[in-house]
Amino acid sequence: MTARPSRAYDDVGLLSPVRAGTPVEAAVGDPAWLQAMLDAEAALVRAQARLGTVPEAAAKTIGAAARAERLDVRGLALAARETANPVVGLVRELTRLVAAEDPEAAEYVHRGSTSQDILDTGAMLVAARALRLTRADLTRTAAALAALARRHRDTPLAGRTLTLHAVPTTFGLKAAGWHRLVLDAETRLARVHASLPTSLGGAAGTLAGYVEYARLAAPGDFDAETYPRELGAAFAEETGLAEAVLPWHALRGPVADLAGALAYAAGALGKLAVDVQSLARTEVGELAEPAGAAGRGASSAMPHKRNPVLATLIRSAALQVPALSGALTQCLVTEDERSAGVWHAEWQLLRECLRLTGGAAHTAVELAEGLEVREDRMRSNLALTGSQLVSERIAAVLAPHLGKAKAKDLLTRASARAEAGGVPLPQVLATTPELTGVLSPEDLTALCDPTSYTGAAGVLVDTALKGEPLAPGGRPATVEDGHGAEYGRSLAGDVRFDGGAR
Amino acid sequence: MTARPSRAYDDVGLLSPVRAGTPVEAAVGDPAWLQAMLDAEAALVRAQARLGTVPEAAAKTIGAAARAERLDVRGLALAARETANPVVGLVRELTRLVAAEDPEAAEYVHRGSTSQDILDTGAMLVAARALRLTRADLTRTAAALAALARRHRDTPLAGRTLTLHAVPTTFGLKAAGWHRLVLDAETRLARVHASLPTSLGGAAGTLAGYVEYARLAAPGDFDAETYPRELGAAFAEETGLAEAVLPWHALRGPVADLAGALAYAAGALGKLAVDVQSLARTEVGELAEPAGAAGRGASSAMPHKRNPVLATLIRSAALQVPALSGALTQCLVTEDERSAGVWHAEWQLLRECLRLTGGAAHTAVELAEGLEVREDRMRSNLALTGSQLVSERIAAVLAPHLGKAKAKDLLTRASARAEAGGVPLPQVLATTPELTGVLSPEDLTALCDPTSYTGAAGVLVDTALKGEPLAPGGRPATVEDGHGAEYGRSLAGDVRFDGGAR
Amino acid sequence: MTARPSRAYDDVGLLSPVRAGTPVEAAVGDPAWLQAMLDAEAALVRAQARLGTVPEAAAKTIGAAARAERLDVRGLALAARETANPVVGLVRELTRLVAAEDPEAAEYVHRGSTSQDILDTGAMLVAARALRLTRADLTRTAAALAALARRHRDTPLAGRTLTLHAVPTTFGLKAAGWHRLVLDAETRLARVHASLPTSLGGAAGTLAGYVEYARLAAPGDFDAETYPRELGAAFAEETGLAEAVLPWHALRGPVADLAGALAYAAGALGKLAVDVQSLARTEVGELAEPAGAAGRGASSAMPHKRNPVLATLIRSAALQVPALSGALTQCLVTEDERSAGVWHAEWQLLRECLRLTGGAAHTAVELAEGLEVREDRMRSNLALTGSQLVSERIAAVLAPHLGKAKAKDLLTRASARAEAGGVPLPQVLATTPELTGVLSPEDLTALCDPTSYTGAAGVLVDTALKGEPLAPGGRPATVEDGHGAEYGRSLAGDVRFDGGAR
Amino acid sequence: MTARPSRAYDDVGLLSPVRAGTPVEAAVGDPAWLQAMLDAEAALVRAQARLGTVPEAAAKTIGAAARAERLDVRGLALAARETANPVVGLVRELTRLVAAEDPEAAEYVHRGSTSQDILDTGAMLVAARALRLTRADLTRTAAALAALARRHRDTPLAGRTLTLHAVPTTFGLKAAGWHRLVLDAETRLARVHASLPTSLGGAAGTLAGYVEYARLAAPGDFDAETYPRELGAAFAEETGLAEAVLPWHALRGPVADLAGALAYAAGALGKLAVDVQSLARTEVGELAEPAGAAGRGASSAMPHKRNPVLATLIRSAALQVPALSGALTQCLVTEDERSAGVWHAEWQLLRECLRLTGGAAHTAVELAEGLEVREDRMRSNLALTGSQLVSERIAAVLAPHLGKAKAKDLLTRASARAEAGGVPLPQVLATTPELTGVLSPEDLTALCDPTSYTGAAGVLVDTALKGEPLAPGGRPATVEDGHGAEYGRSLAGDVRFDGGAR
Repeated sequence: MTARPSRAYDDVGLLSPVRAGTPVEAAVGDPAWLQAMLDAEAALVRAQARLGTVPEAAAKTIGAAARAERLDVRGLALAARETANPVVGLVRELTRLVAAEDPEAAEYVHRGSTSQDILDTGAMLVAARALRLTRADLTRTAAALAALARRHRDTPLAGRTLTLHAVPTTFGLKAAGWHRLVLDAETRLARVHASLPTSLGGAAGTLAGYVEYARLAAPGDFDAETYPRELGAAFAEETGLAEAVLPWHALRGPVADLAGALAYAAGALGKLAVDVQSLARTEVGELAEPAGAAGRGASSAMPHKRNPVLATLIRSAALQVPALSGALTQCLVTEDERSAGVWHAEWQLLRECLRLTGGAAHTAVELAEGLEVREDRMRSNLALTGSQLVSERIAAVLAPHLGKAKAKDLLTRASARAEAGGVPLPQVLATTPELTGVLSPEDLTALCDPTSYTGAAGVLVDTALKGEPLAPGGRPATVEDGHGAEYGRSLAGDVRFDGGAR
Repeated sequence: MTARPSRAYDDVGLLSPVRAGTPVEAAVGDPAWLQAMLDAEAALVRAQARLGTVPEAAAKTIGAAARAERLDVRGLALAARETANPVVGLVRELTRLVAAEDPEAAEYVHRGSTSQDILDTGAMLVAARALRLTRADLTRTAAALAALARRHRDTPLAGRTLTLHAVPTTFGLKAAGWHRLVLDAETRLARVHASLPTSLGGAAGTLAGYVEYARLAAPGDFDAETYPRELGAAFAEETGLAEAVLPWHALRGPVADLAGALAYAAGALGKLAVDVQSLARTEVGELAEPAGAAGRGASSAMPHKRNPVLATLIRSAALQVPALSGALTQCLVTEDERSAGVWHAEWQLLRECLRLTGGAAHTAVELAEGLEVREDRMRSNLALTGSQLVSERIAAVLAPHLGKAKAKDLLTRASARAEAGGVPLPQVLATTPELTGVLSPEDLTALCDPTSYTGAAGVLVDTALKGEPLAPGGRPATVEDGHGAEYGRSLAGDVRFDGGAR
Repeated sequence: MTARPSRAYDDVGLLSPVRAGTPVEAAVGDPAWLQAMLDAEAALVRAQARLGTVPEAAAKTIGAAARAERLDVRGLALAARETANPVVGLVRELTRLVAAEDPEAAEYVHRGSTSQDILDTGAMLVAARALRLTRADLTRTAAALAALARRHRDTPLAGRTLTLHAVPTTFGLKAAGWHRLVLDAETRLARVHASLPTSLGGAAGTLAGYVEYARLAAPGDFDAETYPRELGAAFAEETGLAEAVLPWHALRGPVADLAGALAYAAGALGKLAVDVQSLARTEVGELAEPAGAAGRGASSAMPHKRNPVLATLIRSAALQVPALSGALTQCLVTEDERSAGVWHAEWQLLRECLRLTGGAAHTAVELAEGLEVREDRMRSNLALTGSQLVSERIAAVLAPHLGKAKAKDLLTRASARAEAGGVPLPQVLATTPELTGVLSPEDLTALCDPTSYTGAAGVLVDTALKGEPLAPGGRPATVEDGHGAEYGRSLAGDVRFDGGAR
Repeated sequence: MTARPSRAYDDVGLLSPVRAGTPVEAAVGDPAWLQAMLDAEAALVRAQARLGTVPEAAAKTIGAAARAERLDVRGLALAARETANPVVGLVRELTRLVAAEDPEAAEYVHRGSTSQDILDTGAMLVAARALRLTRADLTRTAAALAALARRHRDTPLAGRTLTLHAVPTTFGLKAAGWHRLVLDAETRLARVHASLPTSLGGAAGTLAGYVEYARLAAPGDFDAETYPRELGAAFAEETGLAEAVLPWHALRGPVADLAGALAYAAGALGKLAVDVQSLARTEVGELAEPAGAAGRGASSAMPHKRNPVLATLIRSAALQVPALSGALTQCLVTEDERSAGVWHAEWQLLRECLRLTGGAAHTAVELAEGLEVREDRMRSNLALTGSQLVSERIAAVLAPHLGKAKAKDLLTRASARAEAGGVPLPQVLATTPELTGVLSPEDLTALCDPTSYTGAAGVLVDTALKGEPLAPGGRPATVEDGHGAEYGRSLAGDVRFDGGAR
């Protein structure tokens, strides 16, 4: 490792290891963003050329000049302070580069356009590239989790609720849950991905500049009814983005959609991470992270540690993205045809959401593909409470004999006695007078085996791996009209929703 | 107005006028929530009865007892402190009520179930009822905005960007934008609405309790492969909710979906509100709120004021929901089979998101249906800058004669001169030597009329009112694989994405 | 438990058990808030009477009428929709009540005032009352934690970092940390508490109405220079609040200060909660919650469970307040002399922050005072890793003999071998050739005893309980001017901050 | 502007112009952060040398090697993925550099330490440097605003509430409000600045490693009671930071304090920004931003525009920081002796809060120092509503004659008539029968002059510029104990807080 030159203001990922070096980072960095904006300029002039209002040659020259490496990203960042956005400087510099090739072509740079068309279209291109990477990583993660679920379909472990052993479950069901959640995240990102639109509005969203230049270029041919749509369609095709129904300078739905889906994805990965951490604790020891490179998980102080670093990185992202996403969604509340500050607040928030979520997804692939499952620890932990975690089952079995309430009471007391005396529950129950003649010692032994009380876990794993999306996979909701309102009325005293009446 | 008894701890809407008295408030209050949880208990036992594992009569008795007005909501709230959720107390009280009718039936209350199944299913029922109301109000709002857009398709007003007059637009386009955004919000809520699932998992998500009781009830018939699905289907049918692929106690997708869509909706309404406020300012005066009841908009101090209270209420909601929604989405990061605290953090946040968004939507109906549009003020404001807001057009017209850069420069200087001298722009231009012979005085007068420079605004309004959803209404995105990665590589020095190469 | 009447829209705490029934709930409910606003009206007229511009009798009559139970809270909530705040209705109703007693006195209700003066002053009164309760609970919690720290000053347990055993620590140090954090929270709330100001500005913050009425009341005496201050001082005295330097209708510092300190307090309690949960897990078992009432911690499904409900409730609050607080702080960004919506967004957010934090503090008292500490489990868990958690110490001891790097390497390998073979670390080390002659078996046994490697834990506990505030307890920061700037320059290549040069 | 090499992943400020090129940016960039961590390592070994447990020469060698420019920041960022933090790599590389000079000295690098001590201490150094810059800019901003307030102490303009003209105020009072808010922000940052502590805990916060090495270095001298404090004091002195009472690896008060104060500061600046924007709108035109460089405020499309870019940039920061700050404060909820992910989530959030707030403060200096105030527009806007904004005054004057309610009603109706007919209010009033003989035409004319109805604005400006902090500047709060509780009880029916009883 030798020093490469850095500038004091650089952010190269030192404080954000969850994304440092992952592919998404290069897809959303400042040079990538700049290139995307240049791609938008190039696509715009190509679209205009296709419609015959700009010479083909000019479009070619502009396209050839529109390379991020020919511009000074830092210089543009500094210049942006004068105009509140980086596009004014970008247009000036691009025009200069084009003019050096062909002064005539320079006339066609950014023709009829406005900063926001370029910045927003560039942002959508960046988002599209980042989502492609992120979705691929989510898909790989989901596949690895599906494999885990399949392999451990019937591996029992303690189900834990409110930090305590509850009833048994299977590791397959746990993994199947992660799988579905990651898949659902992918589905939501896919939906947003497919709808990412170009931004095309001109100075105040009326397309007036574009229309005016086109009218001047071809006064005879110009059709004011059809041109706007044709330009929109051509621009969408040239960028590969979708076409928005309306200019969305101040209608920030596309950004809010991104924010929502990214927060979902980061949160879904965070669920995986905290579960891995919960089971990796020294006392639990049921999972371990992949060993990875030598030194993975090393501590600067403690030679013996192998920290769950992948889960740690993922969780660090999951704790940031939802808050950033909330702030981004708030930017829907934006005044006029273009806000003085709300739009500007979006950019870094959006990039950070893309970068953290993409980094977390990339990290999750490695975690999911290499997760170590320790069945022996799962089994030995299951035995820790002396069968207490089947107390629900025993209560169910006793209910027909004693009544539900009495059975639950009896188990509550027996569990307390087992706990206090350090005696296994079957032993306590064997000496409980109420049970004499009700359950044989053999019955008790069988009932107290936690590994046989995993309910429908296996069936649920099979279902989950078949692949329908969450919820819509089942029957659609049909909650009838009227419930809420009727219920509202019912409290005034007369009618009410009576589900029981059916 | 006479005093009705209140208890000190009551929240009856005093601090949240945006929802006070709106229908959604009654649909999500504590008694409504309690009823929804009772509906879940009733539906569960009906489902079990359908599958023959519980006597029909018991299901009837339980359904009849499951009425919120027979329980003490406050008592349940207080009892919830002992168990961290209100369902333990609810089950105890419901059992007591049922037992008073028929002790045998009491055995079947909450059979095989767990608190979270009941609370989550109840929450989804509440959400379904609230969304029905909210969606209806969004639809009415959107319709009113469409009518405004149609009526004012060609009403010119100043387009404003970064607080300043930019170029002209039309009020129709503005209203069409609001219309689309509200419609898009409705679409997103509809999608979530249709997917709201029941919650059915039992103690740790394996359905073990349900399965065990069913097996005990009908040992001969019981089929462990098919029963779980049958129970799930029956429960979904009895509630009218969708069926989840997997128990989601710790897979909080449904709540995150709600959070995202509600934040979108609140934000969309917030956009409408701040735009109305921007145009209602004393100096602008282009819009006014509906006069409403006598006293609407009154001030406690100033006799002359008629405050834009509807927009104020809506904005107050739009500033809260995205942050609450971010916190709610964060709850995806939840450990184990049931979290100790993360699940519990959701409830009030979810209710507040539903209530604020629903209240804002209800308020928006009145705002949109009664909005006063003052065309005269729009017209007189357009004249304020002495035609400067057509400078973009004049620059376009001059570009072929002078070159784009020179034309823009000339206009920048002319605008500054017009501003400084308080002289209309056409007059300044008429005496600009470069323009002699280029534009006749008549040309100048025509070009300087802002009302004729509204671009494609009319066409865009027509498109927007045709009704496809944003973005997917257009062509779907086709951003090819490889852009991001290639671009990533390009920065290492060799290959790059060259859109211009097509 | 028998049913009491509820109205559908009521929020009586069903979804927020962390605060249901706690004292703060009654201090911040709608009736309490209404009373606080009435207290503000009464205090205002008393202040005016003291200055001789209002008859004493009128002030008395108004004060007597200003009782929340004589007004209809719900009616005021509904009326607030017409004016966007509840004060217009309150003034109308209060005037009516006063007029019924003495029409002359009714002239002096709300004289010169504006809604925001009353609502903001009322909010500060509510906050003051809530903070008093919350601070008392924090103080009790801190005292209980201090007692724990003292009692367990030297009780060893495993220190855990990134979920794994790291090196030993003591439970006393852990408790001392909680103690300090809670105390720091109390300090921050105390600071804000002492500065809660009245709100007194009149219609647009100039006091014009107050001044005008005073001038008219006593044309001869009136001194425009001194009256504003006198009125401010009298109002502050009558309310018991502080006096603001300027009217703060649109300068929301007091609310932002509250938001910040409440989020700190909720977060501090959340730290306690997640630590208790971490140590209460079935496999860890080092802490248990106080047994409390029978049924505390009961599950609706599982007879054997005793859930950590107090920690769960506290954590549920800690996950909400910071996000609400962020939204509240955002309300600093508020336009004009009074915002149309930003002010209105604060009310419910503020109440919720007060209520959740106060509820969490009340819950923490019970948790801290009754926490069960299981020293035996702490001791047995310490033994779990076969002395690996002293590997840092052994590396330190070996460093002088082998060099630091080699020593750490050796320990890393030995730990891995111990882990793989299930052999205790001392045994592995006893057979490591490099150590022959370096450490005797007795040395090794002593070094490998984790209970003797707790560093300065005891000394730190003593220090922490002495009671200075965090950070300022030590020496104040003196980071010299110039570091940052110089460092900035250093990267350009020449000068740099060289700490080493001293 | 010529291209300088950039790497795809770079963030050099393109999307965050509010901070691009401002001094704070260089103070918090990755190289600056790295240097701060190296400064922490150097200070630690100097502290150890002062206490005689490390050779002076080693401390010198390590200090000399600890230069950020000798390390590869990007390499460390990438390496951090293996260990979840950048310090493990930093220690390895620093050790390598030192060993190349003096292998013996390399033994003393990071002796007894842990990653978190270095990262947290580094973070506090970075924060200290950033706060120094930010506070200086806030002080300059406040001074410029004070000058504005002084100059315009008596310049009348319309006070605006809920978007409408309310009553007159003065620009001096407005500027004085901004001044106080910015000053209050500075005060809060100063308080946090002075308390920024070193982080010194060792592997799990017990200082065990430090103590062990010290004991081994000087077995005879070592005093386990005094050494920890001595080391703490020496480290604090060497860094210039404060000394924490306890190691705070998992007690994140210092970060929460930063988060709170930074959000306050960003919000305070945001208030200034939105007010400037409100008054800069084309129709209002009372303020304009400083002209700045040629091209400042230019649009890419519209030659005539001069956008309020400084306010736009500031507002963009103010909309981000509170949400980031909320997420940062949430990080108080952190488990164990060091969290697996919560700590890691803080770093980028903290940097972004520092960077955005510092950038906004730097931008605010330019805005405040160059703000153009257009008194003529203020005066002409005051006349817009035909004296309606003195209706409060006229109502006050009429109250003694007609009664308060009747007077307010009369003014409400007169205002409506004036509005409807476009007639000035005095004229309407002159023909109102109830007023015949009550007010002479001369009285009416005088009363209707808005410039004479600015209440105590001038006095308030004088007070505000005298400089005490908000709230504590006045009398401290003395809200008695018992209000809340008594009030709580009062609702049960018997006792209540009766402010009126005094």
